[in-house]
Amino acid sequence: MNQWLTEKILPGINPDHKISIEIKKKIASFRGKYQKIEVFDTSFYGRMLVLDGIFNLAEKDEFIYHEMMAHLPLFSFANSEKVLIIGGGDGGILREVLKHKIKEVYLVDIDKDVIEISKKYLPFVHQGAFENKKAKVIIGDGIKFIKEYKNYFDVVIIDSTDPSKSSAGLFAKSFYKGVFNALTKQGIIIAQTGGFLEQIREIKKVFDNLKTVFPFVKIHRVCIPCYGNGEFSLTMASKNNLKKIDFKIINDRYKKSKLKTKYYSPEIHITSGFLPQYLKEKLI
Amino acid sequence: MNQWLTEKILPGINPDHKISIEIKKKIASFRGKYQKIEVFDTSFYGRMLVLDGIFNLAEKDEFIYHEMMAHLPLFSFANSEKVLIIGGGDGGILREVLKHKIKEVYLVDIDKDVIEISKKYLPFVHQGAFENKKAKVIIGDGIKFIKEYKNYFDVVIIDSTDPSKSSAGLFAKSFYKGVFNALTKQGIIIAQTGGFLEQIREIKKVFDNLKTVFPFVKIHRVCIPCYGNGEFSLTMASKNNLKKIDFKIINDRYKKSKLKTKYYSPEIHITSGFLPQYLKEKLI
Repeated sequence: MNQWLTEKILPGINPDHKISIEIKKKIASFRGKYQKIEVFDTSFYGRMLVLDGIFNLAEKDEFIYHEMMAHLPLFSFANSEKVLIIGGGDGGILREVLKHKIKEVYLVDIDKDVIEISKKYLPFVHQGAFENKKAKVIIGDGIKFIKEYKNYFDVVIIDSTDPSKSSAGLFAKSFYKGVFNALTKQGIIIAQTGGFLEQIREIKKVFDNLKTVFPFVKIHRVCIPCYGNGEFSLTMASKNNLKKIDFKIINDRYKKSKLKTKYYSPEIHITSGFLPQYLKEKLI
Repeated sequence: MNQWLTEKILPGINPDHKISIEIKKKIASFRGKYQKIEVFDTSFYGRMLVLDGIFNLAEKDEFIYHEMMAHLPLFSFANSEKVLIIGGGDGGILREVLKHKIKEVYLVDIDKDVIEISKKYLPFVHQGAFENKKAKVIIGDGIKFIKEYKNYFDVVIIDSTDPSKSSAGLFAKSFYKGVFNALTKQGIIIAQTGGFLEQIREIKKVFDNLKTVFPFVKIHRVCIPCYGNGEFSLTMASKNNLKKIDFKIINDRYKKSKLKTKYYSPEIHITSGFLPQYLKEKLI
């Protein structure tokens, strides 16, 4: 008999549609301080991390999200040295950030249990990144953490759950002001800001919030299969003019880095930044 | 009580994952000669057409697929006059093709019932396109139809179900040879060729089949929310060099046409033609 894992329905996000994945085996199930953490082996997506019933990542397609979240901002910035990841306790973005010639990367996640479970059951995600000497892992509140830094980080990456959940503070204007102050002169922030189909209003709000704080804001599109329901928005904002960062610049940096990627490429970097007409009209 | 419509599982396509949509009302259910045809009103996607249990189109996102299938080839060809659509009985592509200054468009669909049901229950899809004097609707087999034409159509659009289903003949080398012969000197074919995640082998086979017949083949990507599971491939092939058709050419034609689109734009035309690294390696 097939056993199916059906994604939890969230009022305001997906009250009326859901995805089910066939499970081969339940690997771990743990009620942590902040959320329920589950790991499953599935037939189609390989091993999956599920947080509070919501699909968080899958072995088969995690590279798409993690590569984009790391390389979009890092190749948009010349020679970044100091990077901050807020959230991202699975270590996937950390792994990609460490492929760059950086000096240090902080990972600040409020949920110790996600990190522990990931270390144990998701080695293909972190690939030993937590043990890298450049990585400084801090269990704590990213909103408080950011207030302690001024003019320090070149890139800040916000790897949170969707806007309308408990992570609302990570989408607020006051938080973005803290990030602005913590960033160096040409600093860049990127955040996962929800699906275009389900959360267009939240994306618009985040875009407008960022616009009040940063001079340059740009929305990129990415399709992450295990999230279903169309494309997701990754929103970048910078003190520097993101429009000036063209294909030639990105391509030169990418070639020089000799970095190997599966999804990300200079072409994908540039092309993911174009929105279809109906999204342009609604968002920009 | 909520009623859910769960997409049928197809061996070889989605044996291990499925999507469910909340139904508001069943509008029509009809067992036709070729397939079961159902129409539902759903909470999230609006009205949906379901063929043999597979989600075929949804009111909320049909414009994405229909615009791309029509405008990618039509703006890639200068002043197309004669267009052929094989399949497409819902009339969505027909509607978009008729926005161009063409002389005639044939729609050849084997399933009369799909056309009848669509005319009756999906007016937002065809928007009266079937009544247009330039539209010639033929109930018949596209594979046989194409053999009767030599050097006639500028653009041929194949709007079929996925490669591994009953429409296998529409993905065969012999059929592509027929299309090649039916096309004018610079003619273009476009086909829906399946999802990258689920059908990468089928896409590769189609690509290789087209390559043996046409000198130029190009895969475009599009994310269609109600199909779930990541991006889909739309494959174009031409007697003419598709690589020479750059942004400037497309943009000039688009502006001149004064056509209004929601998803398609010259930017989306060009950017959708770039594949991420892992797909390039597997496909090209």
